[in-house]
Amino acid sequence: MAPIDPVDLTAKLVRCASVTPANDGALEILETLLSDAGFNCAWADRGGIRNLFARWGNKGNTRAFGFNGHTDVVPIGNEADWSMPPFGAEIKDGVMYGRGTTDMKSGVAAFAAAAVDFVTDTPPDGSVILAITGDEEGDAVDGTTALLEYMEQNGERMDVCLVGEPTCPERMGEMIKIGRRGSMTAWFKVIGKQGHSAYPHRAKNPLPAMVRLMDRLASHELDQGTEHFDPSTLAVVTMDTGNPANNVIPASCTSCVNIRFNDQHSGASLTQWLEQETEKVRQEFGVVIEMDIKISGESFITPPGELSTLVASAVEAETGVTPELSTTGGTSDARFVKSHCPVVEFGLVGQSMHQVDEHVRVEHIHQLKAIYGRILRDYFT
Amino acid sequence: MAPIDPVDLTAKLVRCASVTPANDGALEILETLLSDAGFNCAWADRGGIRNLFARWGNKGNTRAFGFNGHTDVVPIGNEADWSMPPFGAEIKDGVMYGRGTTDMKSGVAAFAAAAVDFVTDTPPDGSVILAITGDEEGDAVDGTTALLEYMEQNGERMDVCLVGEPTCPERMGEMIKIGRRGSMTAWFKVIGKQGHSAYPHRAKNPLPAMVRLMDRLASHELDQGTEHFDPSTLAVVTMDTGNPANNVIPASCTSCVNIRFNDQHSGASLTQWLEQETEKVRQEFGVVIEMDIKISGESFITPPGELSTLVASAVEAETGVTPELSTTGGTSDARFVKSHCPVVEFGLVGQSMHQVDEHVRVEHIHQLKAIYGRILRDYFT
Repeated sequence: MAPIDPVDLTAKLVRCASVTPANDGALEILETLLSDAGFNCAWADRGGIRNLFARWGNKGNTRAFGFNGHTDVVPIGNEADWSMPPFGAEIKDGVMYGRGTTDMKSGVAAFAAAAVDFVTDTPPDGSVILAITGDEEGDAVDGTTALLEYMEQNGERMDVCLVGEPTCPERMGEMIKIGRRGSMTAWFKVIGKQGHSAYPHRAKNPLPAMVRLMDRLASHELDQGTEHFDPSTLAVVTMDTGNPANNVIPASCTSCVNIRFNDQHSGASLTQWLEQETEKVRQEFGVVIEMDIKISGESFITPPGELSTLVASAVEAETGVTPELSTTGGTSDARFVKSHCPVVEFGLVGQSMHQVDEHVRVEHIHQLKAIYGRILRDYFT
Repeated sequence: MAPIDPVDLTAKLVRCASVTPANDGALEILETLLSDAGFNCAWADRGGIRNLFARWGNKGNTRAFGFNGHTDVVPIGNEADWSMPPFGAEIKDGVMYGRGTTDMKSGVAAFAAAAVDFVTDTPPDGSVILAITGDEEGDAVDGTTALLEYMEQNGERMDVCLVGEPTCPERMGEMIKIGRRGSMTAWFKVIGKQGHSAYPHRAKNPLPAMVRLMDRLASHELDQGTEHFDPSTLAVVTMDTGNPANNVIPASCTSCVNIRFNDQHSGASLTQWLEQETEKVRQEFGVVIEMDIKISGESFITPPGELSTLVASAVEAETGVTPELSTTGGTSDARFVKSHCPVVEFGLVGQSMHQVDEHVRVEHIHQLKAIYGRILRDYFT
C-alpha cells in the first residue's frame, strides 16, 4: 500500500458539506480507507449522528493507542463573504481553503494517514484505535460520548488518547493541551412586581437585586490559578429587561453568566456557590430569583508525564519547537475522553477556525502527519 | 343663562377622540361655551397642538383667578378590553365610562361650568382665566408652556392658579397637591470590547461596570424627605444587552434610570451627582460610559398659606372631608404654572385614570363643580 497523502485526504473530506449534524459522506471515505488497510470498522451512530470506530489489531492487545477527532464543521456563515468556495478545498500559494481545513478535517486526515502508513509499514505489537465523530461542533451529546459508550459496551479500550484538535495559537508545534478548564452557564431571572416609577414603594423593582447579585459574582475572585491552570473566570454575558417605558418599574429581568473553571472547582461546587449568593440577595431584597444551570464540561488535567513527554518529543523532533504544556482555551471532546484514559491534545495552528476563509498551510498537514506517525512509532517501541 | 350641566359637558368632551396630539373638536366646544358667556377667547396653538386661552373680565384687573387643565387623553389601549365604548361617555348606575372621564375632561367641564355660572350670576370685580391645553399627556412641549408664553407676550396674568387634575387617591376631597416632586431620566451606555467568554482578559466586558454603577445609584439614599416632601426616589427601570451567545462577551450595554426628586435637589444637582458616580466607575473599570439626561420637571412647592387654605375650606364645606396638603405623585402641568404664579391642584379621585374602563361617578362631577364655584366666590369676596 502506497503512503497516504494527507493533503489529498483532507481535500476529499473538506468537499463533504458536513455541517453538524450532516455527514455528507465524510466518515464513509475514512471507513473505506481504514477497512482497506485492515482496520476493523464499526458504526456507533446515535441520534441521527454518524460515528466511526476503527481498530487495527486485536481487541485484547495489551497496548492500545487511540486518536480522537471529528469530521463535522461549523456553518459557513455568509457564503458571499468567502473569497474561496467554502467546500472547495482549493489550494492557492501553498494554502488550502475551506470550512474544516483547520478544525479539523486536516487533523483527522493526518492521523488516519499516519495510522494507515504505520500499521502497513511496521505492524505494531498492539492496537491503534481511531474514534471519529460527526457531532463535536453541535451539542456533542451524540458524538464522542456515543463512541465511548460503544467501546464500553463492546469491551474496546484505549490506553492513551490523542485528540487532534488545533492547539497551536500562532506557530506550528508551540502548544500541547494537557487539560482544559470546565465550562458552565447560569441563567438568572429576578421576579419583582411591576409599578409606576413615581411610586417605587408600591412596586418591587427586580433590577437592584439583579445588579447587586451580578456585581458580587463579577467581582468575586474564584481563584488565582492552580499548578497547571490559569485563574478561573466568570463573565456576565447579558442582562436584559426590555422595558420601553421609563416611568414603569419592570416586573422581571434576566441575565446570563458563563464560567470557565480550573481544577480547584467543579460544576457542583460552583452551582452551590451560585445558590448561596442567590439566596443572600433573595433575602436582602425580598425578590424571587430563578436560576438554571448548564454544565458543558468539567475541568480535566492529564498531569505532565509519559503521554505528554511522548507527544512533546515527537513535536520537537519534527518542528524544532519545544511545545508548551497548556490548559488554556475552550472545551473539546477531551472532556469526555478523560474519563476513559489519559488524554492530551495536539494539532494545527487554529487561528482561522470558525472564520470566513478558514485555511491551512499544506506543509503543516504533512508535518502533522509526520508528528502523529512518530508518536505511534515511539509509543510502540 | 341657565346653569351649565357639568355632566353633560363632560360627556360632550369625552365623545371627542382627543388622544394626544388630536383635539377632535374638544376645545372648540369649550371655546363656544365660554365665548357665549362673555369670555375673551384666544388660541395659543403651537406645533400642531390646540391650546385655548379664555379670560372673563378686563385684562388689567387687579385680581385674576386662573384654572388650568387639559382635554387631551392617553390612548385607549386594546379596545376589546373595554366593557363600555371608550369614547361613548355612557352612564350606568351613576357612573360615566370613557377615556378622559377622570383625567381630566370632567375636571375641565367642572371648572368651565363653575366659571360660567359664577360670572353670569355674580360678575366679580376681577378676572377669571381658563388656560386649557391639548398637550399634557404627550411631551407637553407645546401645551401649557405655549399658553404661558402666549400670556407673557400678551400681558395676560393670573394671580393664583388651580390645576384641575385628579388628586384624590380614594375618597373625594381627601387630597390637595401643593407641590410636586421633580422628575428626570438618565440613559447610560457602557462601551467595552467584544470577545470570547473563555478569554475575558482579551475583551473588556461592559457589564461589571454597568452593574457596579447601577448598584451604587440604586442603593444611594438621596434624602430622607423634607418638610413638605416624601424622600426622593431613584428607579433603575431597564438594563439591556441583547447578547444571544453565552460564549461571547458583549461590546456594550444600556440602562435607564428614573429619578423623582424633592426640593432638596434640582435637575442640575442630580446631573452633577450622576456624572461623578459615572466618572468613578469609568476610572475603576476603564470603560467608556455615555450618559444622556432629560429633566422632565423640577420640583416645586406652594407652601401652605392663603391659596391652599382657600381651596381646602371649599373642599371641606362641600364634602365634609378635610383635605391633606400633599406633594406626592408624578408630574403635572403645575410644574410649568409655578413659574407664573402660586399654584395648587385639586380634582377627582384618580384611581381609574389611564386604565381600561376609565370612569367617574356622576355625583363627583357635580360636587367638583360646586367646589370650584365656591372657591371662585370665596376668592372674590
